[in-house]
Amino acid sequence: MNVTQLTDQLIASYARVGGINYLDGKNLPSKSAIASITGDLVRLLFPGFFDEKVIHSSELKVETATLMDSVLGRLEDEMCKAIEYQPPNDEAKRAPRKAAEAATREFLASLSGVREILQTDVEAAYAGDPAAASKEEIILAYPFIESIAVQRLAHELYRRQIALIPRIMTEWAHSRTGMDLHPGATIGSHFFIDHGTGTVIGETCVIGDHVKIYHGVTLGARSTSGGQQLKGSKRHPSIEDRVTIYPGATILGGETVIGAGSTIGGNVFIMQSVAPNSLVIYDGLDMRVLQKPPKGKPADYQI
Amino acid sequence: MNVTQLTDQLIASYARVGGINYLDGKNLPSKSAIASITGDLVRLLFPGFFDEKVIHSSELKVETATLMDSVLGRLEDEMCKAIEYQPPNDEAKRAPRKAAEAATREFLASLSGVREILQTDVEAAYAGDPAAASKEEIILAYPFIESIAVQRLAHELYRRQIALIPRIMTEWAHSRTGMDLHPGATIGSHFFIDHGTGTVIGETCVIGDHVKIYHGVTLGARSTSGGQQLKGSKRHPSIEDRVTIYPGATILGGETVIGAGSTIGGNVFIMQSVAPNSLVIYDGLDMRVLQKPPKGKPADYQI
Amino acid sequence: MNVTQLTDQLIASYARVGGINYLDGKNLPSKSAIASITGDLVRLLFPGFFDEKVIHSSELKVETATLMDSVLGRLEDEMCKAIEYQPPNDEAKRAPRKAAEAATREFLASLSGVREILQTDVEAAYAGDPAAASKEEIILAYPFIESIAVQRLAHELYRRQIALIPRIMTEWAHSRTGMDLHPGATIGSHFFIDHGTGTVIGETCVIGDHVKIYHGVTLGARSTSGGQQLKGSKRHPSIEDRVTIYPGATILGGETVIGAGSTIGGNVFIMQSVAPNSLVIYDGLDMRVLQKPPKGKPADYQI
Repeated sequence: MNVTQLTDQLIASYARVGGINYLDGKNLPSKSAIASITGDLVRLLFPGFFDEKVIHSSELKVETATLMDSVLGRLEDEMCKAIEYQPPNDEAKRAPRKAAEAATREFLASLSGVREILQTDVEAAYAGDPAAASKEEIILAYPFIESIAVQRLAHELYRRQIALIPRIMTEWAHSRTGMDLHPGATIGSHFFIDHGTGTVIGETCVIGDHVKIYHGVTLGARSTSGGQQLKGSKRHPSIEDRVTIYPGATILGGETVIGAGSTIGGNVFIMQSVAPNSLVIYDGLDMRVLQKPPKGKPADYQI
Repeated sequence: MNVTQLTDQLIASYARVGGINYLDGKNLPSKSAIASITGDLVRLLFPGFFDEKVIHSSELKVETATLMDSVLGRLEDEMCKAIEYQPPNDEAKRAPRKAAEAATREFLASLSGVREILQTDVEAAYAGDPAAASKEEIILAYPFIESIAVQRLAHELYRRQIALIPRIMTEWAHSRTGMDLHPGATIGSHFFIDHGTGTVIGETCVIGDHVKIYHGVTLGARSTSGGQQLKGSKRHPSIEDRVTIYPGATILGGETVIGAGSTIGGNVFIMQSVAPNSLVIYDGLDMRVLQKPPKGKPADYQI
Repeated sequence: MNVTQLTDQLIASYARVGGINYLDGKNLPSKSAIASITGDLVRLLFPGFFDEKVIHSSELKVETATLMDSVLGRLEDEMCKAIEYQPPNDEAKRAPRKAAEAATREFLASLSGVREILQTDVEAAYAGDPAAASKEEIILAYPFIESIAVQRLAHELYRRQIALIPRIMTEWAHSRTGMDLHPGATIGSHFFIDHGTGTVIGETCVIGDHVKIYHGVTLGARSTSGGQQLKGSKRHPSIEDRVTIYPGATILGGETVIGAGSTIGGNVFIMQSVAPNSLVIYDGLDMRVLQKPPKGKPADYQI
């Protein structure tokens, strides 16, 4: 087949196979534009850390105003697309550009509040990890800082019922950090996820203050075939204050509450609530330790 | 040492330490070229989703033909390198460019078939996840769509015994999504991996229809010291229709079959077959729950 | 609020919320510069693999000298920033640029030694994985090669007490591969991590020769609230020669030693030492397998 034939065949498939095309509609928010905006928002949150050259206080106002102006314009365009795609209310449906302007400004006004809670996260990371040599190292080299900053920003948009953009933002961070933190989750202060790859926090989680989580931890929902009927219900667990959850623990269900001060051991699978100040681990006696015969040749590693 | 001395020392090491150089050979397929081609193939599969501006039906034919033409030329170059590196048969060895032309066209003709099965994957994701607000959200913000699209494309090349390119394609998606889906795996329709970070599906897996898998799931092989002797044998499990596998479950071995309709709980480690309609979980009674003394001061989190 | 008001509010927050700003200081090492340098170092280690065009022996010296010269200059700049930020000794404090020059040259002189041990890692990967069709496939399409190359490079800087740069380097690889390998870890020859997403190796780990690890494996520390008091102590396990660790196993604690020749099963959680030649798995008898009633309609997947 030549190019024309290959193209015709594919276009025939566009007509035949629906549901995975997006043609003739209004523009959807652009993934690449939102990636670039989110990167700039992180720069606004942590001034001086992610710029090639150091920022001096004397230039700070001009530099910040320039970046703010650029972010405002670009974000407003994407917000307008999201609102046209799915208006949060009737007024926004009638005047999407005006609604986008208001929502964008309101969102950017929330940045200083986001900074206040992010400061407690950096403190928690530093207090909790002896491998951290300084707070600068945490901001420069801990992927958690990026993932939590983006989740807290996306949560501000999620609360305002902006479609698509919050999830595109957290997926950008998910791709870069391995942490899948849903914009809907409510997360308290002094939060810390160490290492973080594979950690999942679901849409309806509620997490208290001073919670520490490791990589590979799931705060998830039970699976169901009737997925869409459960939309909006609380499907993910609640984690109270001062809980620590070790790597690989899986905690499921909307009625599951991990009581304050509890510690959940690694690789545990929990679908029930746990009282405050509990320690949950699998019983070590259930481990089977066998002696393999020592061999002269390298072990064959077989299990 | 100055630059010349540093260079001389390194070049001496190139001569001395073999096995990790690639010099004077034919070109290998380029990772960066294949990354860009794979991105464009995903755009061809989901028209209108990953473009900056919306595509209208009137322009669709011209836009698609232009992209198809570009992909055809670039992919043919990489295919030619792969065939020269390891010809799939004697004819391809004698005339690699001609074989590359034919294989490229044949592969591009398979795109509409790939679209048909991808549509069922999008449906399964939407039906299975109450957090998904729309099918547009799934295509824009679920990393699974990218990883399964790339695996299904790479599988078409793997079936045609094209070397290196299929694995470079799936590793591109692995790096972006955390899902390591081998091009060799045979995967049925209505497949869905939620979250996905850390999920591994091995080369000789066979997966039925309507299977739902979470992040951190391994469908893997037993380890062995005599690795290369097992090449080509079935080393990874079979998963029958309508199976659900919760986060962190590890299922190993080529003779392991998970029977149709079964549910595998989180963090389970399985190396044996399971009958149809089974529910496999660790017994909750084996969990040890201890009460820690409540304290006035913040818990010290120690396990 | 308009842009000026939004900017003023954010700048007021910069003044009020300390600890996450970096203003008026010396430059910190740049994440993007270090990303680009690290990519070039990997090209120097594996000549001919990551270049668009093939390198011939006749051009090798010129090409290598050009790249070496470029890396030397750029790395020296970043080293100087790191030494100014945290001088490893008094002499470096007095003359940071001179110390950066010396450290950079010393580091680049270590590249051929790093190549020698990386060759054993490639051999181990090829011997250990039947899915690998060739050593070229391993270098082009196994994320482990990138993560271990970067860890071994970063370890050379860590040993020389260079601040920030080693961790920025391994986080670059972590973001691309999902493997979080701390620059401080001491890792023997013939090492292999298969798949790798979610594997964590802590700062004070000591790993012997011929060790094989899968994805999702944690060699970590116990959590503690008094994190910073433990800085410098051995907090992560030791893994002796010829150990294999299956996916998802979590091994914690600085006094934990996994004896030579042992095999650790998937998803096991261990905080105690294991004698040589042990096989550690959870007892399969503790698995609860229930029969679900077969249904005429699709299973509802509920657990």
